[in-house]
Amino acid sequence: MTNNRSSQIWSTISSREVYKNPWIRVREDRIVHPNGKEGIYGVVEVPLGVYVIAINERSELLLIKQSHYPTGLDSWGLPAGAIKPGKTFQEQALEELQEEAGYFAQELIRIGMAQAQPGITSQIDHFFIAKQLHRKQLPNETDLRLEEGITEVGFFSFEDVDKMVSNGLITHGQTLSGLYLYQSWKNKSAF
Amino acid sequence: MTNNRSSQIWSTISSREVYKNPWIRVREDRIVHPNGKEGIYGVVEVPLGVYVIAINERSELLLIKQSHYPTGLDSWGLPAGAIKPGKTFQEQALEELQEEAGYFAQELIRIGMAQAQPGITSQIDHFFIAKQLHRKQLPNETDLRLEEGITEVGFFSFEDVDKMVSNGLITHGQTLSGLYLYQSWKNKSAF
Repeated sequence: MTNNRSSQIWSTISSREVYKNPWIRVREDRIVHPNGKEGIYGVVEVPLGVYVIAINERSELLLIKQSHYPTGLDSWGLPAGAIKPGKTFQEQALEELQEEAGYFAQELIRIGMAQAQPGITSQIDHFFIAKQLHRKQLPNETDLRLEEGITEVGFFSFEDVDKMVSNGLITHGQTLSGLYLYQSWKNKSAF
Repeated sequence: MTNNRSSQIWSTISSREVYKNPWIRVREDRIVHPNGKEGIYGVVEVPLGVYVIAINERSELLLIKQSHYPTGLDSWGLPAGAIKPGKTFQEQALEELQEEAGYFAQELIRIGMAQAQPGITSQIDHFFIAKQLHRKQLPNETDLRLEEGITEVGFFSFEDVDKMVSNGLITHGQTLSGLYLYQSWKNKSAF
């Protein structure tokens, strides 16, 4: 996948940090647009992320219900998180699956990546199918989940997942991206 | 679609603006997590957005190729943009379709919404199918597009679109979300 690299048509004149917390860093760059016009660009830097498409032996998809503070909306979605320093994508995928949903997976398959909001943030997420699931409970898991706004965990048939999309119960963008990547991967694998 | 509203389990103690430019506003809130723990939350505020799934009389999808400064990656994707003050979603969808791709649509159908990156930004995007397309050229359209990093515009069969996803030519998350919402809407409309 070398064909999605930047054509390097933007250029940076200077860059200054305007805000930082443990999760994001915001910088304002002075830039030259690809048409030669000078301007500023506010960029939100975040670590790479992983999303987990965990499927049980009945071909049901694991989803978590999360209340999102920045939008004020709830949505069912895939377990996900930022890659911690020193962790591989696979290790982080397993960690999120356990922390957010209470499962371990014996098999992980990387199926693609997606930019969450590339006009504003540096976010690039990698998507993994997780199979051969086993319940793996942490002693304080309910509290840890609630801290992130996660209130429910459940398995749903793909028919139900599609109904949840139609009914507005799944409005989490990267979850919809993951569902498309999974369908596309599955159709390809069928041949 | 009242069922995706927030369960209001987060609460805000105080809020301060830490950065602002004409496109984004960043604030740091002092909050109480749903489990009662106090902390801070950096939120990136952006206007609502629209995405346009424009389909021609040969059932081909209109895509633009854009170089994204924050990620350093190129991707083919749907025309999109932020709602300007005083504009309706429909007016903004038509404006983005013309400015980013050079087309006017006589028919717009709203098919859903998605949160781009709800752990960090307030971004909520509304998706429209656009039909009955007519070329509508602006005198300086190539320069305007290049200013936003848009280098190409094209129509592709959905078979080709799926290959572009598999080959990593489409890595734009909300474009993948839009493709899933479109498929889901089309399957439902078939019955």
